[in-house]
Amino acid sequence: MDTFGKMLKLTVFGESHGPAVGGVIDGMPSGVKIDLGSVQKQLDRRRASAGISTARREKDIPEILSGVYNGMSTGTPLAFILRNSDARREDYDSLLDVPRPSHADYSGHIRFRGYEDRSGGGHFSGRLTAVLTFAGALAEDMLKEKGILTGTHIRRIGTAEDEPFDAVSPEKQLKALAEKKFPVLSAYAAKQMKEIIVDAANEMDSVGGITETAVSGLPAGYGEPFFDSLESRISHAVFSIPAVKGIEFGAGFALADMKGSEANDPFVIRDGKIRTSTNHSGGINGGISNGMPIVFRTVLRPTPSIGIVQKSVHMDSLRDTALTIEGRHDPCIVHRACPVIDAVTALVIADVVMEAEGRNFFAGEAE
Amino acid sequence: MDTFGKMLKLTVFGESHGPAVGGVIDGMPSGVKIDLGSVQKQLDRRRASAGISTARREKDIPEILSGVYNGMSTGTPLAFILRNSDARREDYDSLLDVPRPSHADYSGHIRFRGYEDRSGGGHFSGRLTAVLTFAGALAEDMLKEKGILTGTHIRRIGTAEDEPFDAVSPEKQLKALAEKKFPVLSAYAAKQMKEIIVDAANEMDSVGGITETAVSGLPAGYGEPFFDSLESRISHAVFSIPAVKGIEFGAGFALADMKGSEANDPFVIRDGKIRTSTNHSGGINGGISNGMPIVFRTVLRPTPSIGIVQKSVHMDSLRDTALTIEGRHDPCIVHRACPVIDAVTALVIADVVMEAEGRNFFAGEAE
Amino acid sequence: MDTFGKMLKLTVFGESHGPAVGGVIDGMPSGVKIDLGSVQKQLDRRRASAGISTARREKDIPEILSGVYNGMSTGTPLAFILRNSDARREDYDSLLDVPRPSHADYSGHIRFRGYEDRSGGGHFSGRLTAVLTFAGALAEDMLKEKGILTGTHIRRIGTAEDEPFDAVSPEKQLKALAEKKFPVLSAYAAKQMKEIIVDAANEMDSVGGITETAVSGLPAGYGEPFFDSLESRISHAVFSIPAVKGIEFGAGFALADMKGSEANDPFVIRDGKIRTSTNHSGGINGGISNGMPIVFRTVLRPTPSIGIVQKSVHMDSLRDTALTIEGRHDPCIVHRACPVIDAVTALVIADVVMEAEGRNFFAGEAE
Amino acid sequence: MDTFGKMLKLTVFGESHGPAVGGVIDGMPSGVKIDLGSVQKQLDRRRASAGISTARREKDIPEILSGVYNGMSTGTPLAFILRNSDARREDYDSLLDVPRPSHADYSGHIRFRGYEDRSGGGHFSGRLTAVLTFAGALAEDMLKEKGILTGTHIRRIGTAEDEPFDAVSPEKQLKALAEKKFPVLSAYAAKQMKEIIVDAANEMDSVGGITETAVSGLPAGYGEPFFDSLESRISHAVFSIPAVKGIEFGAGFALADMKGSEANDPFVIRDGKIRTSTNHSGGINGGISNGMPIVFRTVLRPTPSIGIVQKSVHMDSLRDTALTIEGRHDPCIVHRACPVIDAVTALVIADVVMEAEGRNFFAGEAE
Repeated sequence: MDTFGKMLKLTVFGESHGPAVGGVIDGMPSGVKIDLGSVQKQLDRRRASAGISTARREKDIPEILSGVYNGMSTGTPLAFILRNSDARREDYDSLLDVPRPSHADYSGHIRFRGYEDRSGGGHFSGRLTAVLTFAGALAEDMLKEKGILTGTHIRRIGTAEDEPFDAVSPEKQLKALAEKKFPVLSAYAAKQMKEIIVDAANEMDSVGGITETAVSGLPAGYGEPFFDSLESRISHAVFSIPAVKGIEFGAGFALADMKGSEANDPFVIRDGKIRTSTNHSGGINGGISNGMPIVFRTVLRPTPSIGIVQKSVHMDSLRDTALTIEGRHDPCIVHRACPVIDAVTALVIADVVMEAEGRNFFAGEAE
Repeated sequence: MDTFGKMLKLTVFGESHGPAVGGVIDGMPSGVKIDLGSVQKQLDRRRASAGISTARREKDIPEILSGVYNGMSTGTPLAFILRNSDARREDYDSLLDVPRPSHADYSGHIRFRGYEDRSGGGHFSGRLTAVLTFAGALAEDMLKEKGILTGTHIRRIGTAEDEPFDAVSPEKQLKALAEKKFPVLSAYAAKQMKEIIVDAANEMDSVGGITETAVSGLPAGYGEPFFDSLESRISHAVFSIPAVKGIEFGAGFALADMKGSEANDPFVIRDGKIRTSTNHSGGINGGISNGMPIVFRTVLRPTPSIGIVQKSVHMDSLRDTALTIEGRHDPCIVHRACPVIDAVTALVIADVVMEAEGRNFFAGEAE
Repeated sequence: MDTFGKMLKLTVFGESHGPAVGGVIDGMPSGVKIDLGSVQKQLDRRRASAGISTARREKDIPEILSGVYNGMSTGTPLAFILRNSDARREDYDSLLDVPRPSHADYSGHIRFRGYEDRSGGGHFSGRLTAVLTFAGALAEDMLKEKGILTGTHIRRIGTAEDEPFDAVSPEKQLKALAEKKFPVLSAYAAKQMKEIIVDAANEMDSVGGITETAVSGLPAGYGEPFFDSLESRISHAVFSIPAVKGIEFGAGFALADMKGSEANDPFVIRDGKIRTSTNHSGGINGGISNGMPIVFRTVLRPTPSIGIVQKSVHMDSLRDTALTIEGRHDPCIVHRACPVIDAVTALVIADVVMEAEGRNFFAGEAE
Repeated sequence: MDTFGKMLKLTVFGESHGPAVGGVIDGMPSGVKIDLGSVQKQLDRRRASAGISTARREKDIPEILSGVYNGMSTGTPLAFILRNSDARREDYDSLLDVPRPSHADYSGHIRFRGYEDRSGGGHFSGRLTAVLTFAGALAEDMLKEKGILTGTHIRRIGTAEDEPFDAVSPEKQLKALAEKKFPVLSAYAAKQMKEIIVDAANEMDSVGGITETAVSGLPAGYGEPFFDSLESRISHAVFSIPAVKGIEFGAGFALADMKGSEANDPFVIRDGKIRTSTNHSGGINGGISNGMPIVFRTVLRPTPSIGIVQKSVHMDSLRDTALTIEGRHDPCIVHRACPVIDAVTALVIADVVMEAEGRNFFAGEAE
């Protein structure tokens, strides 16, 4: 439901226009330095950025309620909240009976029997991804301490395409990415993408795109065959991010155009270690890491909130109608989704590692 | 790990060349007629078929060990096994130290510390998918009783492409598909696909492909925002099938080329009901069913076991080597994967419905 | 870890002297009237009461952060916090290296590697039981709507013994109990118990006791054989309350002195319904409710915090020492534990019923 | 439901008179020597023994279906079955409409809607405890390798009482117990107990009793506050054993008669280590092990199947009736329950340790 993970569990809560959104991280190892700078940096990357995002501005300054003492995790549940300060409930009044196309207004209305708080998307709001980002930032820091790096860039928006990750050794690209506000490797592609987003905004329309994520430094042997395959757990987490509609690992859908002899990644010895010379498998064989980088791509649909008039219906009277959505909208959320994908990926990887290595693997020295 | 589901749980076990593979279905509703004919039909569809599949022939006749009495489910755990009768352990001896490219030999060796039973792929074997198929066939029958149909066809192998599902009303196609051994709607496409598979076999190579799955008849309101989104749960299950490397819902990766105004599915009233006129969302908004068919596509990689000589390494001595895989192999497993994808999809949908409606929704009348 | 339940899940967090304690209820049905009056009443019963409890006074006024809209549950996670306003961190400084006997100071120190926040017991504090009480009060209200009543009284403190529940029909007693601040049926026994507690306080010592809980109105057929037996789930929840050291259902330990012919509860027809004439089974056969009241008793140890000087050790230097605990302590927490036992019992029963009947059984009418 | 555990999960299945009972152990570490001698020894202790138990004789020779290769665990699910060879279905025909008092016949009938297989108790049968015993025997062996010993003796049957465990150092007693078929420390008490059982059998009646379990060698720091307290997890497992009606840790219910100053266990330094001089806490503080032996007592009700005529009802026609139970019954199952309590205790302890130390803590050396 709203809890995910086995050894490292995240529970999320909150509505867009309620008092706060927040989360509880259970199973947090003891003695992990809680670097609020890292957290804030990721939260800022997720936040709306001028010109190409919604005008809504939340300060996104988290309050930690428990589980941290003297700047270190205690090992008990780490609860945190982000107060909703800039909510304008009135913008959404007209939506109450007319569901926005491809939003959760209708499906959520049936699911929650009409009792849902729909303002700002309620619990479905993208604002909840700030909670994922907070928790994931802590996981990213924990992984980094062990030499495991995670990073996500925009691979494509419209016709603008970034250079792909080097699937065999993406470390340099991951480091370059960590410094960028707009997560695109090529400056030229970044410029093109921003233009596409601004054009869509000017047309009161929206665009989607494809992101690409790499995890480097994860040794072989993590994951499971069957229901806890790395692909199963990563995809489960990634599909919990609103707007995600597809995921592919390694060569992904392109594998349909390859022969086995092309798709197979030959094993080779490199510097005395077992590696593969290509990485069409995306670092995973039989659900288990093979020591190569984990690489996957995610497609995010165009934001469904657009300014153009659309067809919809009155849910109560079952009549067709037209709908114009007022309020502030993102013409594109792909760049904002990148730190969120990083976050859930890091949470999954940290969880999988903790299952194998025990709950103290990421913990501080016993005092 | 090897258990999946919340209200309806499946645990799988077994190795390819061990005494048996099998499963336990926990949470099975009481008083469901156990139609072994349906089960056998799906098992037969999953089984190797002459000419285009491996020569290995398991009879795949299941033995039920518990949970069925007088042909009806009791409601206690339903355990079943499929004995492994046709195992040839000697075929795999040469593989012990040299991992097959893109197989789980290496990653599994590290994961299981060298204690794994590697003959025939051991626990990673595609043979385990017979267990998924058995359990899923029961779920498919339960869903059918409630008017929910599930079906999967091969959408594409190489350049041969089947007609797509009608994303708005696939019922007729689903019924046609239920009668087919080779799950392709267009007879011409089926012929082409078989030729491509035979060609790959003749080249001692293999091919992959893309499947498409539809679920019709699921009402709006099932699923959850966030971690139990329908996409999360379906993808989790589908990625537990060996060889799956990508999944996309609705318009999927093509959404990256669409504007919001094109991607959004307008709500309309049809026969007094709320529907959408297009279905680019694949029947899911905000993780929750919207009453339209659920549609997704899955990519399966080319079978990694090919007869062509390949590069690999000695795991012990860390030396490069060449590998020729002996034994019987499938040049393509896409057609065999279709009933397995149906199976796990049905298990997820039945589970989600039971969470909402209670454990007796699919049960027989109280006696 | 800190999450409990299947369909109705509670996650707890917080430290005694941190910013707040709180919880998240996931799986809350939609459209349940949130009666903060009921909640406050139970919180007040759990709170310290003058004369026989600690001098610490928390206002215990909860803030709801999410999941409630217009006074009704939305069905999304219901998060709430109780701010810690009256914490005196300095009282606990002397304890840092010398663990209090029979407290979690030492075991928790090893578990959390020295990073725990020990002030006021930290995450082990009885204050966390306010979180259980809040969540349980909502569950009690939900059950009451369906005719299921829960209540706990003090059965015994020292030599003072209350009248037992009528195990066959405790309804009248349960209603009487609901009105009492000090949860004892006999006024005379209540007076004696209070004297015993005051005496212990005067001796700077503490006392424990035995509580008795009854659940009436739960129909037959809820629960499971084996790992989800009602006894398993209730005991799991009850043992999460600090100071609980034993639980017995029905005749409990006295069954060791009975023959089968005495212990068996004969089935009889009463008012056209199947009942038993005695209830030594405590309403549960084979892990499943039999329609009779569920009855169990719980033993709570004497509060380990006492004013008398005690033997302990320096954890760092491994030397024996003497310890005098400063600060405010409860000479008895048995009366305060009663609403907490009610709370966790109601959470378990509501969860078990929701598994059987679906997530909307307690929900409001669809709007 | 029928699965228990987090890292080390056991799923049980089977009916008394169906083809087989069995289990699946998921999360089994790789490279553990599977000593079928240990398993058989525990299965034999659980089996009926001449004179004081039922005349039914199952050979109880398990068949392993998966997860073991060359005598070592592979790390994949370990499935095993015990065929039911000696079932006499006809003995139970008369029970179909008249539920046996204090059996699960009635509650199970409602729970499973009339579809249950009631012969021999079906899924509720004590025969299922052989499955727990098999799995637990493997866990006991794993713990023993790490110096952790588990043992259970009969503490009391009727007026016959065994010497209690030395709660501070029970090692010698645990070793003595491991060699005994009838798990009682004092030969004199054993003789008395057997007489009491034989007397009950002669009267066509039954007796219950109290067992005592100790776990030595578990270091401090295992367990959790709140919902995963050691008491919560142990009690959850122990209450899944049929006939268990109460459990108490350490001094248990006797704590109601003690002052805090008596109940508290003073910390002392012994041989340079932190210990307590008494063990009224049963080795657990705040839900977490404190390094002292874990000690708990369990009460088992008298077997409900007795030969004496009893009152019952016709479930269909709702009329009172008298019932005489034919067939073979145990006059006492307390001695047979001892290895089962050992088994579930060992499973819980191994699981808790694996959560802390990782899945490879009990695994063999990587090959």
